[in-house]
Amino acid sequence: MSDANPYALLFEPVKIGPVTARNRFFQVPHCTGLGHLRPRADAGVRGIKAAGGWAVVSNQETEIHPTSDLSPFPEGRLWDDRDIPALRLMTDAVHEHGALAAIQLVHNGNHAVNHLSRAPILAPSEMSADLAMPKHARAMDKTDIRELRRWHRDAALRAKQAGADIIYVYAGHSMSIAQHFMLPHMNTRSDEYGGSLENRVRLARELLEDTREAVGDTCAVAFRFAIDEMQGPDGMQAAEEGRAVVELLADLPDLWDVNVSGWDNDSITTRFQPQDGYQNDALAFVKQVTGKPVVGVGRLTSPDLMVSMVRKGIVDLIGAARPSIADPFLPTKIREGRIDEIRECIGCNICVASDNLGIPIRCTQNPTMGEEWRRGWHPEVITSKGKQNEVLVIGGGPAGLECAMQMARRGYEVTLAEASSEFGGRVARESRLPGLSAWGRVMDYRLNDLTQRANVRMFTDSALDAAQVAELGIGNVFVATGAHWRRDGIGRNTQRHAPDIAAGATILTPDDILSGQMPPVGPVLVYDDDNVYLAGVIAEKLALAGLEVIFATPESLVSSFTVNTLEQHRIQARLIDLGVDIRCNQTLAALGAGNASLACAFTGRQLPVVCGSAVLVTERIRETTLHASLKPLNLTTLELIGDAAQPGLIVDAVFSGHRAARDFERPQQDADKDWFRREIIDLREES
Amino acid sequence: MSDANPYALLFEPVKIGPVTARNRFFQVPHCTGLGHLRPRADAGVRGIKAAGGWAVVSNQETEIHPTSDLSPFPEGRLWDDRDIPALRLMTDAVHEHGALAAIQLVHNGNHAVNHLSRAPILAPSEMSADLAMPKHARAMDKTDIRELRRWHRDAALRAKQAGADIIYVYAGHSMSIAQHFMLPHMNTRSDEYGGSLENRVRLARELLEDTREAVGDTCAVAFRFAIDEMQGPDGMQAAEEGRAVVELLADLPDLWDVNVSGWDNDSITTRFQPQDGYQNDALAFVKQVTGKPVVGVGRLTSPDLMVSMVRKGIVDLIGAARPSIADPFLPTKIREGRIDEIRECIGCNICVASDNLGIPIRCTQNPTMGEEWRRGWHPEVITSKGKQNEVLVIGGGPAGLECAMQMARRGYEVTLAEASSEFGGRVARESRLPGLSAWGRVMDYRLNDLTQRANVRMFTDSALDAAQVAELGIGNVFVATGAHWRRDGIGRNTQRHAPDIAAGATILTPDDILSGQMPPVGPVLVYDDDNVYLAGVIAEKLALAGLEVIFATPESLVSSFTVNTLEQHRIQARLIDLGVDIRCNQTLAALGAGNASLACAFTGRQLPVVCGSAVLVTERIRETTLHASLKPLNLTTLELIGDAAQPGLIVDAVFSGHRAARDFERPQQDADKDWFRREIIDLREES
Repeated sequence: MSDANPYALLFEPVKIGPVTARNRFFQVPHCTGLGHLRPRADAGVRGIKAAGGWAVVSNQETEIHPTSDLSPFPEGRLWDDRDIPALRLMTDAVHEHGALAAIQLVHNGNHAVNHLSRAPILAPSEMSADLAMPKHARAMDKTDIRELRRWHRDAALRAKQAGADIIYVYAGHSMSIAQHFMLPHMNTRSDEYGGSLENRVRLARELLEDTREAVGDTCAVAFRFAIDEMQGPDGMQAAEEGRAVVELLADLPDLWDVNVSGWDNDSITTRFQPQDGYQNDALAFVKQVTGKPVVGVGRLTSPDLMVSMVRKGIVDLIGAARPSIADPFLPTKIREGRIDEIRECIGCNICVASDNLGIPIRCTQNPTMGEEWRRGWHPEVITSKGKQNEVLVIGGGPAGLECAMQMARRGYEVTLAEASSEFGGRVARESRLPGLSAWGRVMDYRLNDLTQRANVRMFTDSALDAAQVAELGIGNVFVATGAHWRRDGIGRNTQRHAPDIAAGATILTPDDILSGQMPPVGPVLVYDDDNVYLAGVIAEKLALAGLEVIFATPESLVSSFTVNTLEQHRIQARLIDLGVDIRCNQTLAALGAGNASLACAFTGRQLPVVCGSAVLVTERIRETTLHASLKPLNLTTLELIGDAAQPGLIVDAVFSGHRAARDFERPQQDADKDWFRREIIDLREES
Repeated sequence: MSDANPYALLFEPVKIGPVTARNRFFQVPHCTGLGHLRPRADAGVRGIKAAGGWAVVSNQETEIHPTSDLSPFPEGRLWDDRDIPALRLMTDAVHEHGALAAIQLVHNGNHAVNHLSRAPILAPSEMSADLAMPKHARAMDKTDIRELRRWHRDAALRAKQAGADIIYVYAGHSMSIAQHFMLPHMNTRSDEYGGSLENRVRLARELLEDTREAVGDTCAVAFRFAIDEMQGPDGMQAAEEGRAVVELLADLPDLWDVNVSGWDNDSITTRFQPQDGYQNDALAFVKQVTGKPVVGVGRLTSPDLMVSMVRKGIVDLIGAARPSIADPFLPTKIREGRIDEIRECIGCNICVASDNLGIPIRCTQNPTMGEEWRRGWHPEVITSKGKQNEVLVIGGGPAGLECAMQMARRGYEVTLAEASSEFGGRVARESRLPGLSAWGRVMDYRLNDLTQRANVRMFTDSALDAAQVAELGIGNVFVATGAHWRRDGIGRNTQRHAPDIAAGATILTPDDILSGQMPPVGPVLVYDDDNVYLAGVIAEKLALAGLEVIFATPESLVSSFTVNTLEQHRIQARLIDLGVDIRCNQTLAALGAGNASLACAFTGRQLPVVCGSAVLVTERIRETTLHASLKPLNLTTLELIGDAAQPGLIVDAVFSGHRAARDFERPQQDADKDWFRREIIDLREES
């Protein structure tokens, strides 16, 4: 690389103990919902990161023993030698592209409830198991601690045998026993592992020493440590014990991978933390204390910010989980000066939700994520076009933009027609809601790409009818006309009984709100039978505008799905703080002029509510009229994509547009086969 | 069998289409949390049922296609030929013991959200996906229906190839598309698949016809049909359209497997439906309409009830899911007249919870369930004793009883000492709470067994101390002293901040309530940081006693864990009906004399509550004093079991006692290996 590259600093090699990272880009460990259940898919994810230029690619927390059994969640697993081959797939995939492979060992303490193994649950002191599971953990005695050290050491040896270059000791995210021992509220021991900070850090120190002793000759020993619990004086703070821990262990690890705890703080969404580099204040001290390289995270996608972080001595290595998911080729793009081609993480945490649901990782920005092995998708490479030349994409929302962009990359002449006056569809509209502006990156990335291509024609204000489509003479048409929200209150919980809606009721839908309309009279009832983010963010918008808001939902939590994106507690707290009147476990029974009736989800008992208007967030209806009218044209290709095909999340729309572009001119039977690809259990005896 | 057997009727063979069941005992399909992720374990479960005398052993709902992908839940799977070998393990295991194997094909419609496959979600009409997932289902067009029929037919052929004798078409539990088509609130089609009942039944009819045509020469075609949705006039009713469906399809299936819908009604817990045979009223009509054999369920464990059901012409075959889990050898025991040896299902739905959690099936009564393959456990067979002769079990709760019983079966001289005046421990006490009397079966079964054995000595009112244990001179001691509930309000959500408890506060624990104490003053605050059933049932007891009750919990639902046992909605409804003042999302901050302070789980904001007393249901402390005092005796064996080792559910205590008995005199390294046994992914290319 030329020194003229303003980001050359990011491409300096960094020595980490006995190994050397080729540059400063470091994919810190992150879960994928793949793990030991989908090892080839996991290797696919990690391999593509290495191909994209990351110097270090880590796997995810890797259970070292059946007392740390996270079933049913598929994380990494290294219980014994039988687990080595699956991890070897990952390290091979990473090495193939010249990167270092890191394996993050973990004993999860009382965060693991050992559903499969039925082994005892372990903790520093007696306490309940985590995760609201009806089990208790046992305080570890000295034998348990000796055993734990032996398990960890054995797992380190297996990790080395699996090809790891860097092996992690893990004390973060409130999920790891080495951290549990450090925290006074979890460790009330009176022996040499409890009491003083030095005592509470003892286990972490021993695990680091054991690991170095076992594998340190050829493997670097990394320490992933949560320097701040973000609980103020109620928890560990970077300025207090967090710093003291770093001082105590200073140069013992070969690498400090520091972040904040719990996971909801480390991987906070843009909705609640729009600032990239948001962990810098907390982690700035670390390099002042240790002489070893430091890696930190904070949704880092801007190379300028990265350079400044290295220059200021905050970190040596640029850590990333989510930015590496959104763009596995981020390092390569920076190296090649293709900054505007970076697919920036939007901080929506759909990736996190996948892991929490126990399903393969998905990414709103990067539709190829998790599909590298399963569908053979590469985030930067797509097959060139076949016999067809022209494609018309109708609708410029997330599905249409992605489809058009990928079609253009394949070499087709692409026409993109958007009925409204702006591109972006729901992404443009939703990103104007409070806290969601970063979601606009879904649109920005694609528009930036499309507007630079000679083979793309783009039109706004271009609602097409069948005659106009026929006139265009393009034989391959992809219809991404989206969906609109129902106005009749029908949804999951009202299928059997449609709400009784009076003629005089003032009803708005999310589409009205998104197009700028506001409730004409208050108080306004926001009724949510969708349970994702939209109703909650609409309630926030209305409350911020000074309206009196009642939020009702048949679910027991506001925006219940967002438990999976680690935001739910923040959303509900925000609505409470804004004075929203929250009514959970309530189904909409009736809506009149100036009032509504809510029915208890448990008893059916109805309760009147005074409200001047209502925003109904229940279910969507696909916009298929145009598609239907095109059928008689007998086009070569006519396909519905995005919300028009199946209303879902933005991630689903982008995936749908991408898949359509990939499958175009592909034999249908090959495309159908993709649905079936899966990893299955080995039935050979004691395989 | 002698005709003198009063249950001889139950052992008559029954012809089911082209196959014949050797008797009337029919394990209807049920989930196991094993399925395609743990096929050998699943085959172990099914094989043991066949060994136990069931004439038919079914698997569980088996996905026919990637558009019916229930990931992450591991059900059966028959997407293509690669799935056949796993199911072949199951049919082989069943055939080995002379039973018929049934495979239940399913397309789950909008109940499947296709997380892995990302295939479209299908439904009769446009609607949201089930399970509060942020996706919509697409109304199936004629092509979709043709495809569905092809997939189902192909899956039937694969099921036959896998060795199935009976192949199911499934229209029940609100989980299957053939049922979705029948229900007017889900099917608003205007074509020949919608409108009239005949139209709405068309898809089921076609699937039955297709299946018969494809495999009916050698396989019986069973139809699992929910005759009543238990929604009164809001849903399908047995006396109305339920009956009409049976009339329409009358003799088309070879077997009618009828039940009520949804799953929470079909598998209702004893807490909410204590009556065995509770589905008889709904299903009595079926045999009047069809000439084909009928199987029905209803937690049937009494052979007298079974005989009367056959005699009355209600069913031909005795269906069972839960009773076959609690006792796989139920048919054999009835055949051999060993009625008092039946391990009766207690209707606690821990089996169901396992499936809902995506973990291997567990059973409170039968600790070997789900462990047949993994640990090689047989419910009726246990290794004979080794060199040791005597065993002392201290504590007669669920762990102690199970341990003593299995030790006696192994041939040891067993002494069982219980400190209190009754055996049963927490089971005896909890079964006196409202609705939980059937749980006493855990104790009854074991006491019945123990009291008949010559090698068992049992003592109540026998609290032992170390000197007395030494005096007994028994070298192998198992300590099952249980646990007691904390009185300080500390639990999961108060670890960082113990509640501020004033000296004058009147506090009870569940132990107080279980021992008959009642709050001296009201209103009483029941504070639940345990989240399983106990706090909810205590609140119920107190409210029934006429006390004013406030129920507070940091969770968003009352008894939140019971979502998994399908009871949560009933529990919360019952408390509401009893006038309990429910405060969800509240953590206990302070407790005074006559008042308490609750802190909002989202904002921390505190709210005062007037209460004269409080029952704190937070966390337990293990009773280990005796165990500790025995250590100096240097006994040959000294082991903590049950809640004293790890507080958990009753199922955990029984398992712990069982495991201890199995592992006694077994090399430690062999016992430890059990933790590791698991099924892993096949890494061979396109295996």
